[in-house]
Amino acid sequence: MKTNPARLRQQLEELAALGRTPSGICRLAYSDAFWKSNEYIADLMRQAGMTVRTNPVGNVVGTYPGRSPWRITVGSHIDSVVNGGMFDGCLGVIAGIEAVRTLHEAGFTPEHTIDVAAFAEEEGLTVAGLLGSRAYCGLDPTPVMRERMGRFGVTEADFAAAKAESPIDCSLELHIEQGGVLESRRINIGVVTAIVAIKRYEIEFTGTANHAGTTPMALRDDALLKAARFIQQVPQAVAETDPEMVGTVGRLEVSPNAVNTIPGTVKLILELRAVSDSSVETAYQRLIDGAEGVTSSRLVFHDPCYRMDEALRQAIHTACGELNLSATDMPSGAGHDSMSLAQVTRPAMIFVPSVRGVSHSPNEDTLWTDVENGANVLLHTLCIADKLPQDGERSSG
Amino acid sequence: MKTNPARLRQQLEELAALGRTPSGICRLAYSDAFWKSNEYIADLMRQAGMTVRTNPVGNVVGTYPGRSPWRITVGSHIDSVVNGGMFDGCLGVIAGIEAVRTLHEAGFTPEHTIDVAAFAEEEGLTVAGLLGSRAYCGLDPTPVMRERMGRFGVTEADFAAAKAESPIDCSLELHIEQGGVLESRRINIGVVTAIVAIKRYEIEFTGTANHAGTTPMALRDDALLKAARFIQQVPQAVAETDPEMVGTVGRLEVSPNAVNTIPGTVKLILELRAVSDSSVETAYQRLIDGAEGVTSSRLVFHDPCYRMDEALRQAIHTACGELNLSATDMPSGAGHDSMSLAQVTRPAMIFVPSVRGVSHSPNEDTLWTDVENGANVLLHTLCIADKLPQDGERSSG
Repeated sequence: MKTNPARLRQQLEELAALGRTPSGICRLAYSDAFWKSNEYIADLMRQAGMTVRTNPVGNVVGTYPGRSPWRITVGSHIDSVVNGGMFDGCLGVIAGIEAVRTLHEAGFTPEHTIDVAAFAEEEGLTVAGLLGSRAYCGLDPTPVMRERMGRFGVTEADFAAAKAESPIDCSLELHIEQGGVLESRRINIGVVTAIVAIKRYEIEFTGTANHAGTTPMALRDDALLKAARFIQQVPQAVAETDPEMVGTVGRLEVSPNAVNTIPGTVKLILELRAVSDSSVETAYQRLIDGAEGVTSSRLVFHDPCYRMDEALRQAIHTACGELNLSATDMPSGAGHDSMSLAQVTRPAMIFVPSVRGVSHSPNEDTLWTDVENGANVLLHTLCIADKLPQDGERSSG
Repeated sequence: MKTNPARLRQQLEELAALGRTPSGICRLAYSDAFWKSNEYIADLMRQAGMTVRTNPVGNVVGTYPGRSPWRITVGSHIDSVVNGGMFDGCLGVIAGIEAVRTLHEAGFTPEHTIDVAAFAEEEGLTVAGLLGSRAYCGLDPTPVMRERMGRFGVTEADFAAAKAESPIDCSLELHIEQGGVLESRRINIGVVTAIVAIKRYEIEFTGTANHAGTTPMALRDDALLKAARFIQQVPQAVAETDPEMVGTVGRLEVSPNAVNTIPGTVKLILELRAVSDSSVETAYQRLIDGAEGVTSSRLVFHDPCYRMDEALRQAIHTACGELNLSATDMPSGAGHDSMSLAQVTRPAMIFVPSVRGVSHSPNEDTLWTDVENGANVLLHTLCIADKLPQDGERSSG
């Protein structure tokens, strides 16, 4: 069985058109473009033989009934960042609908009931990331979600009502890699082993703000010099701790940030990501121990590592074998809706290559052959997973 | 002859009270506090036996007539930065008035006519720095002054009308050091050799903005890492080029400055100050030649070096000898109204120590004994300068 590549492309392009701006795709959760796109998705789901549930949380869930109420959830998101691309999230939703449509057209009745979900607010630019998938999974809203979701008309009752209608046996998410590993290694499919742990630390370096003309070099205490030394040590500390981990200083603020004043304070965010929590801890300690002038450091964000299910990973490899596609195990450095699903069911993720590894950019791109490959792997994996023994105990959690 | 230390202190404190806020002195040019302070200064000048000229430019000039119309201008400024101190600028104005009042009380008629000037907008936070002294010196307004001064009711005619009434033979400015050299060397008086040249370069480092989770360390092109390497090289490049010069990166902006994005661009301002233009050039070339990832660098500000007059420097040393005060030659790393005067007459500057070298801060401080010493050196230097041969040819320029 194969998905229809022409239909996939047409639907991805029609969806993109609903969010296109002169500088890329902009479909922020709860924007006009978002709600219009939700209607478009709901129509596609109906055409694919599904019944559709929508709700104020912004999720669109299409259900294709199977012999059992136990669900396989195939989902991703359609909200985007500002100036984003057309595949991030949308690929997983459109390919999920296409996979079910293919089953429907073949007159196939699965063992499991299949939910295809377009989760709201994965990106977290409007309320807080993963809002829609948390609600679908029956998780509590986070404190930030509680504080902000009311602005978009979402109540706690709406959030609770968006929960999946019956227990989820497992989940599958097809997504673009958003990195350059598959492309550089010329591999068709990434089989995600885990979504890495993320820790972000706000670190403050303190010196003495003073006149940049009258303070001799020897009498200076320059906070930016201290921060610059620290930043330079990140790549080596990270590489020597764990060759697969990454560390980034993406945000930095100088105070007073005046051309003629020696910087008195620098605040930066150090972000560390690794499959292993201990790698994150080790790299952080090494960096902090080697730093000069740090007056405070606090953890401001933490996501644990979410491991993907072994049996489903094997199912993806089997599907790739059936389709004559090359595949490799790899961690996901980015966060995904599967982080919510991992908390209540057995999760799995399939990656397709990103051109030049670019994402969250109008230059994000994925080749149409890779789109087709990904959708076919999703369809085949879905059929294999449908035959796997149900993991009732875990999925009731 | 000596100035009156109690009167000096009282007047400095009364002037400070007119600009005091909970977080330091704030007497921005053309603010209410500024105009009230100008009235206070005008009153003090009249009490000291001077006739007073005020104008829309915001200068207050008190004139004490001598036998010749040729002027000695004793001046500084009373405008301040936000959250500044009570001595920066004000010391030179109040001590100048006190010096003339001392002469007046002694019934002394000088050879030269003495102008004591409180120049407007030295700091440059309102329109553009040195506005008042440029007008007094008969220099043209700069393009930025032309563009902005109208907002404060200053016309080009006002600017031109603020010119000194007769040629200036020489000038004297007493100022706090704003650095820690005199304090750390326990020296009473700094005799300024030159106001250093300043060049500021806006330098842009370019990398590739990308996802901080999905881009392996080996595939990154991080603009902030390149900038950090550059910043670290500044102290050594500067020290090895000229032990007296200074170099500072005080301003830096990261783009997109997001916790989860590898920095794509960093813009920073490199400021270099030295007595010698060639030191500035050499250090700049060395830094740029050693930098990686620089996609543009442009000069955004340039002040040449202004050398102080040799005969007047000698007069200051003589005055210090008469008063049993230690003195040392030193450059001024900061800009001053004397930069305007240096363009039309023979300039001189006297420094007194700054406690801990702090200025442009509510913690700026100078000991009252140093205030007294500075005023007495100013008075004695004024008397010596009054007897020096006039430099008519130069001061008519």
